[in-house]
Amino acid sequence: MNNEQVLEQLIGRIVGPNEEVAAEASAHVDALTKPPGSLGKLEQLVIRLAGITGEARPSLDRRAVIVMAADHGVVAEGISVFPAEVTPQMVHNFLAGGAAVNVLARHAGADVICVDIGVNADLEHPDLVSRKVRKGTANMAQGAAMSRDEAIQAILAGAEVVAAEVAKGTKLFVTGEMGIGNTTASAAVMCALTGTAPASAVGRGTGIDDAGLQRKAAVVSRALSVNAPDADDALDVLGKVGGLEIAGLTGVILAAAAHGCPVVVDGFISTAAALIARQLAPVSVEYMIASHTSHESGHAALLRELGLKPMLDLDMRLGEGTGGVLSLHLIDAACRILNEMATFASAGVSDGSNETGRTDDSSTAASEVRGEVSP
Amino acid sequence: MNNEQVLEQLIGRIVGPNEEVAAEASAHVDALTKPPGSLGKLEQLVIRLAGITGEARPSLDRRAVIVMAADHGVVAEGISVFPAEVTPQMVHNFLAGGAAVNVLARHAGADVICVDIGVNADLEHPDLVSRKVRKGTANMAQGAAMSRDEAIQAILAGAEVVAAEVAKGTKLFVTGEMGIGNTTASAAVMCALTGTAPASAVGRGTGIDDAGLQRKAAVVSRALSVNAPDADDALDVLGKVGGLEIAGLTGVILAAAAHGCPVVVDGFISTAAALIARQLAPVSVEYMIASHTSHESGHAALLRELGLKPMLDLDMRLGEGTGGVLSLHLIDAACRILNEMATFASAGVSDGSNETGRTDDSSTAASEVRGEVSP
Repeated sequence: MNNEQVLEQLIGRIVGPNEEVAAEASAHVDALTKPPGSLGKLEQLVIRLAGITGEARPSLDRRAVIVMAADHGVVAEGISVFPAEVTPQMVHNFLAGGAAVNVLARHAGADVICVDIGVNADLEHPDLVSRKVRKGTANMAQGAAMSRDEAIQAILAGAEVVAAEVAKGTKLFVTGEMGIGNTTASAAVMCALTGTAPASAVGRGTGIDDAGLQRKAAVVSRALSVNAPDADDALDVLGKVGGLEIAGLTGVILAAAAHGCPVVVDGFISTAAALIARQLAPVSVEYMIASHTSHESGHAALLRELGLKPMLDLDMRLGEGTGGVLSLHLIDAACRILNEMATFASAGVSDGSNETGRTDDSSTAASEVRGEVSP
Repeated sequence: MNNEQVLEQLIGRIVGPNEEVAAEASAHVDALTKPPGSLGKLEQLVIRLAGITGEARPSLDRRAVIVMAADHGVVAEGISVFPAEVTPQMVHNFLAGGAAVNVLARHAGADVICVDIGVNADLEHPDLVSRKVRKGTANMAQGAAMSRDEAIQAILAGAEVVAAEVAKGTKLFVTGEMGIGNTTASAAVMCALTGTAPASAVGRGTGIDDAGLQRKAAVVSRALSVNAPDADDALDVLGKVGGLEIAGLTGVILAAAAHGCPVVVDGFISTAAALIARQLAPVSVEYMIASHTSHESGHAALLRELGLKPMLDLDMRLGEGTGGVLSLHLIDAACRILNEMATFASAGVSDGSNETGRTDDSSTAASEVRGEVSP
């Protein structure tokens, strides 16, 4: 079986969420002591989580952020403030526990799994997951970033990382990444698949100025015209103008969906991977949870394209999975709401309809209800 | 000394944050291993918290949500789906730990302090803070909701609750409330102080339909024309068209600022109280932290009016302090970032300038840096 067939098998294992369990959770949400719908996205979230996990009272206690690191040949075009050497430097920072994603993952009780999927340096560390497909992509402004088979290898590597984590009991995944130049590749993927104009898709990344932003848009235009990626073939797009970490995260998302695990999508790069995943397996979008709206220009549009509604609005533009791990607290909160809140019946609270009969005589209701509630 | 003089004394104790300590925190934030500004609102937040607390590395481990409960005479006008009896019923739910705010406060490690500032029922419970000023307001559509002195009494009661908590070691406050009819009073306060048209200020509250929404706007218009509140006198507005929990929360905000404590502002009702607080003491806004954008129509405009930027976008419209306590996780995350992240110097990561000299030879940088980082 060749790699493309292995990928097709993975995609074939993805089925939709359990609608019956979701409906059961939905009925319980409506019985809780609050106006219907008043907890907004938290209600929709916990109903989705029930459907995804098949558990009416989901508990996602073990979780991991998968940080895929890779380099990009396109940095030769001068599209980033930071030099390419920062990619391996930051990998060591992740492994030492000093990066933002480490701090926020500790805060959220999540493991950080750092994967070298394509860093342009020889890296060794006991905690590093070494799955290097190649030492960075080629410069997409001059030709294909990588071959179609390399893109598929990187997807399968991501899927295998998820499978290994699921075997250890991990129930929820967060996408994270590091790779100087990867907002440029993500913008190219977005343009190739959605037809967005490069000037609307590129953002300031780590902080380029106006001239840099124009250069970045021109580089994306050039990459698209040099490579002519086929919008109907996500693997062609991924290979020609994508990145190894984008491919790895595509695999993380597909495998999470295949294993019935929710996957929290972080920022712009992660959402580009989600777009590839949806094109390969449309039902995978049912397993995706949007975390935050990045400050990076194209992100909000990409989320809308996927029909995903972010919960955090923090103007962040760091990547690494930082927005994703920050949103785990909201996921936990939604699960606790389902498990711990009183119902109208259990707390003796009028539910706004006249069915309880209590609204008939409001003058005595307060004293009546005191007897019903056990403090 | 009369109540108004006591209030003036409280206001006089509010001074601005410590700019020197804020600048110290800001310098440290810029030295951390991330592109400058890339953690967005979390960076601004922790710099503000440093200034507010006067601590360069703030830690806000003990915190409380103050849930002010009160009734509203204006419910006689049919502006709510839920009957007034739900106010005391929900107070019992808070005291039994079964409401949404209880679940979310447990999740955030915050105490829930439930205060009867004006519920229209005789309530007794060992954990209830009884500070009833009167048994609900009068119907503002027919005359003043309460007297000016009653409004001041409620403000001072809120301030005393904060003082008692500060004495116990509480370092951060969240505003919360319960009161059937209180989105109507909050809309009236907003209209009186900002000149907003009632139709733009009213929302669906607990879930009224289109006809109810029109009735609610008409009731607010009537309350404004019957009472003619003076826009230049926040206490006149608060007494004539406000509510006892709005006044109590005004006191919570003013006292938190006076004690140098950050105060997290929840939804529409809490933000109406914040508007009153700012008019009484403009510098108090420096101590306010916006949590979420409520689904209630007027909330986003009120936050803009105060210059506050919310962090959560959850379409919630429950009140109780639920959005406020959910945001505590983000506040904690921001504080941990400051304490735990590596700096460019400590992690040996190039900072994007050429000052380190490392960008000169990127081919050897990766191996060089491995020696600098202790994993």
